[in-house]
Amino acid sequence: MTTSETTVDVVDFTPGRWGNPNDPMLLSDSVVGALTMLGINEAAPAPVALSIPATRLDADALTALADTGARVSTDDAARAARLRGYSTPDLLKFRAGDASDAPDAVVVPTSADQVAAVLATCDGRGIALSPFAGGTTVTGGLQPTRERPVISLDLRSLTGLLALDEVSQIATLAAGTRLPEAERLLAEHGYELGHFPQSYEGATVGGCAVTRSAGQSSIGYGRFDDMVVGLTLVTPRGVAEIGTAPKSAAGPDLRQLVLGSEGAFGVVTAVRVRVHPVPAVRRFYGWHFPDFTAGSAAMRALAQANVKPTVLRLSDEAETGLNLANPSAAGSASGPVGGCLMIVGFEGDEADVDCRDTYVTARLAELGGVPLGAEPGEHWREGRFRGPYLRDPLLDAGALVETLETVTFWSNIDKLKADVTAAVTGALGEQGTPAVVMCHISHVYPTGASLYFTVIANALADPLAQWGEAKSAANAAIRAAGASITHHHAVGTDHRATYLDEIGDVQVTALRAVKSALDPNGVLNPGILLP
Amino acid sequence: MTTSETTVDVVDFTPGRWGNPNDPMLLSDSVVGALTMLGINEAAPAPVALSIPATRLDADALTALADTGARVSTDDAARAARLRGYSTPDLLKFRAGDASDAPDAVVVPTSADQVAAVLATCDGRGIALSPFAGGTTVTGGLQPTRERPVISLDLRSLTGLLALDEVSQIATLAAGTRLPEAERLLAEHGYELGHFPQSYEGATVGGCAVTRSAGQSSIGYGRFDDMVVGLTLVTPRGVAEIGTAPKSAAGPDLRQLVLGSEGAFGVVTAVRVRVHPVPAVRRFYGWHFPDFTAGSAAMRALAQANVKPTVLRLSDEAETGLNLANPSAAGSASGPVGGCLMIVGFEGDEADVDCRDTYVTARLAELGGVPLGAEPGEHWREGRFRGPYLRDPLLDAGALVETLETVTFWSNIDKLKADVTAAVTGALGEQGTPAVVMCHISHVYPTGASLYFTVIANALADPLAQWGEAKSAANAAIRAAGASITHHHAVGTDHRATYLDEIGDVQVTALRAVKSALDPNGVLNPGILLP
Repeated sequence: MTTSETTVDVVDFTPGRWGNPNDPMLLSDSVVGALTMLGINEAAPAPVALSIPATRLDADALTALADTGARVSTDDAARAARLRGYSTPDLLKFRAGDASDAPDAVVVPTSADQVAAVLATCDGRGIALSPFAGGTTVTGGLQPTRERPVISLDLRSLTGLLALDEVSQIATLAAGTRLPEAERLLAEHGYELGHFPQSYEGATVGGCAVTRSAGQSSIGYGRFDDMVVGLTLVTPRGVAEIGTAPKSAAGPDLRQLVLGSEGAFGVVTAVRVRVHPVPAVRRFYGWHFPDFTAGSAAMRALAQANVKPTVLRLSDEAETGLNLANPSAAGSASGPVGGCLMIVGFEGDEADVDCRDTYVTARLAELGGVPLGAEPGEHWREGRFRGPYLRDPLLDAGALVETLETVTFWSNIDKLKADVTAAVTGALGEQGTPAVVMCHISHVYPTGASLYFTVIANALADPLAQWGEAKSAANAAIRAAGASITHHHAVGTDHRATYLDEIGDVQVTALRAVKSALDPNGVLNPGILLP
Repeated sequence: MTTSETTVDVVDFTPGRWGNPNDPMLLSDSVVGALTMLGINEAAPAPVALSIPATRLDADALTALADTGARVSTDDAARAARLRGYSTPDLLKFRAGDASDAPDAVVVPTSADQVAAVLATCDGRGIALSPFAGGTTVTGGLQPTRERPVISLDLRSLTGLLALDEVSQIATLAAGTRLPEAERLLAEHGYELGHFPQSYEGATVGGCAVTRSAGQSSIGYGRFDDMVVGLTLVTPRGVAEIGTAPKSAAGPDLRQLVLGSEGAFGVVTAVRVRVHPVPAVRRFYGWHFPDFTAGSAAMRALAQANVKPTVLRLSDEAETGLNLANPSAAGSASGPVGGCLMIVGFEGDEADVDCRDTYVTARLAELGGVPLGAEPGEHWREGRFRGPYLRDPLLDAGALVETLETVTFWSNIDKLKADVTAAVTGALGEQGTPAVVMCHISHVYPTGASLYFTVIANALADPLAQWGEAKSAANAAIRAAGASITHHHAVGTDHRATYLDEIGDVQVTALRAVKSALDPNGVLNPGILLP
């Protein structure tokens, strides 16, 4: 039996814990056993209650914000719920009761006009604003600088399918529409986005755009930045409708300047995005490869072919061993022992899926793959959003656990994987905490692929500092290898320094020029993306 | 028998006449007959000799330029050869002897370091520079403002395959490498670009990048801006290496800011671009559709499917009637009378081509297409670069002939085609010169397609003014329909006003900010893209 992604509910995540609070994950006995092998046998300290600082906005400013028509709250619970995101450091700070960078108010506009009015108010009064949507950032994207009062501009009331062009297969969605809600609205007309990041339950259309989200079907439907054909951007200089045509030779593609801009250039209020008919057929398979080298060579061959699957994912030996492709059964054995599990999926109409399935199956067999049938594929599909749910119980159990990701060209993949693994295990090993580092490839291109790492070690007394060492080592290894600091988690504040080094002075000059021109008073997410 | 595109020679176009001067095209009797029906029966006046103005650069400036190591020439012939491009207005000005906007000198660097040195010299002395590569612009991309002396920076000595990463399938090509030369160099290693604009014989890799060229295989291999993974950009602020990975979430995609920038932000000296193995199999077919509506619906269905051909092109009834898909036989009958000709091509290895051919053939038959076999496909392929060669003999014969193109979403295609056709025929009809307007679709996307128009009418005594009216009407119709002013011809100076209107104030502000930051003295192609 297969479940439809479109039946997944919209979830308001609990502050400080990932995902649907009604559907937490428990650690299996075999995972607990694995933790013991890493020396993890002491549960984390109980969380400390959050201490929310007083708002720095005076009554006059709060009145001006309320005069825009948007709802304004300085309530502790509202501010705590927009405090940071879901990186492990974010969660550790929550557990430590640290709410020192809570926004000074939460402002909830219900229309694009109210967004513009709030922005104008902030611009005129020097109040910083940080757009909030899914709230699922793992790179500090909700932590602007604190030199001035900051509001959290909660866009989750800007929801809905504003237009659907069935001929062109384009949906216009309000930026705050959560992905499951977008799929529900589109399914009423027979369409879907097919965009499934692991944050699917909470993430929004606007958030996916400004952070360049990549979903699990990226080889089939493209990254979110590939799917966007237009955006509405509210800036202190006015409103821009960006994107006139699918593609154009009319100058630079300025959609690609807003995609990935993380709220630093303006607030995206609506997104025009490519959709496709709800597939009549969905087939997901498991394949076994003897090792990561053979599996990644097969991934590359498929990525460079003209006929592609809809989903393609490869776990390395360590991730395959822990069965992370099937989080509900993590740590339990399934399939051949050793080697690497690949997931291959097809979605479309029957003739299309038959055509691609036949071609891809023949190629994978030629490339040394052993078919495992539909069961591992369907297990992966059922658990596709569950991976991050493992983190909180692991942290509870006294583990330090975090993920990081990067992207490079194919010729650099093996070196990058080795270098990042060595950097992280080295940095944690030096602190006396040997680590397990697992890796998967879940996004491929003709010229390269992403690498996604999951790290588990015993948590020390100061796990924030402990992880800080590992993350710095990983960042340095990624830069030294010439890879990009992030494939789909974005820059936020956590990756900012490495990002600026990656792009260099000329490109920083260009970005700063755009920032200064569109946001002359520097109120838009200050410190995010650019210092 | 099929010819390989890679055997096409690099061509130095003759100033003022398109294409290979050793291989001109003659009008067939049937075309001459068609011209008579349009009232075209008086040959154009004989061309007037060019009158090249004296250079405005003094000896000191010329010495400083020569001190960079680049070759510097103020020779009339050299300056005439870099004068304007190949729009019909450009050709008409040539015929009238107008060389009033000839560059003041031609500077030919042989290395990226020399480019930087020339740029620094120009920046320090307030000399404008206009990068010149293929010289095939049809939108005034070689006509910067004349407020200050201008050099033509001829990049055609920056040639060669600088690196080839066969694992990642990425070639690094010097910007001045002509496309046929790039294919020859790549073929030595078993690879190709597969990028075939009609200007293929003269166009360069760098020119294709900064103007967002689209080749005839765009549905298979992507537009040139899709193929670029990195660029080296020399600016007055320094040199930028842009593009770290295939795709990234590390901020805006700044490659997309340089692609389409037409030399206004810097000089591209090298391009890293996706390549693929030389296809073992190439199959091209003709299909017949009863009318443009049925044909374009079939194009849309293929563009929105997961399995696609490598080449897809549809001529409307008028273009099919004149047989422009087979320029060598233009005006002669071939295939069914009436209706529309579609060209469908596949390139790849045998299994891949078999798979896609089977799927696409079944779809096209379902969609009302009638297969015409391989002959029309191979005819099209053999003549694929010949279309523009018809223009000069048509102008000689007293016709006014020009092309223009645009792009929009599928739901707007029929209206756009009707509106542009009405605008052009109306503007020419009002001048007493009824026009034939033909159209084809040669670039499709899931969400939309380009429209490419060819216009023929009797030339009046002032054909520049005559065409000016038609072009203005077409521009206004494109804007009113909400389409983009250019799909692959770029902005240059001809489309600048309409382009600025298309993107609006906020986007213009962002572009101006980048321009001012990277080119504070305004020496880079002033007036191109931005006023």
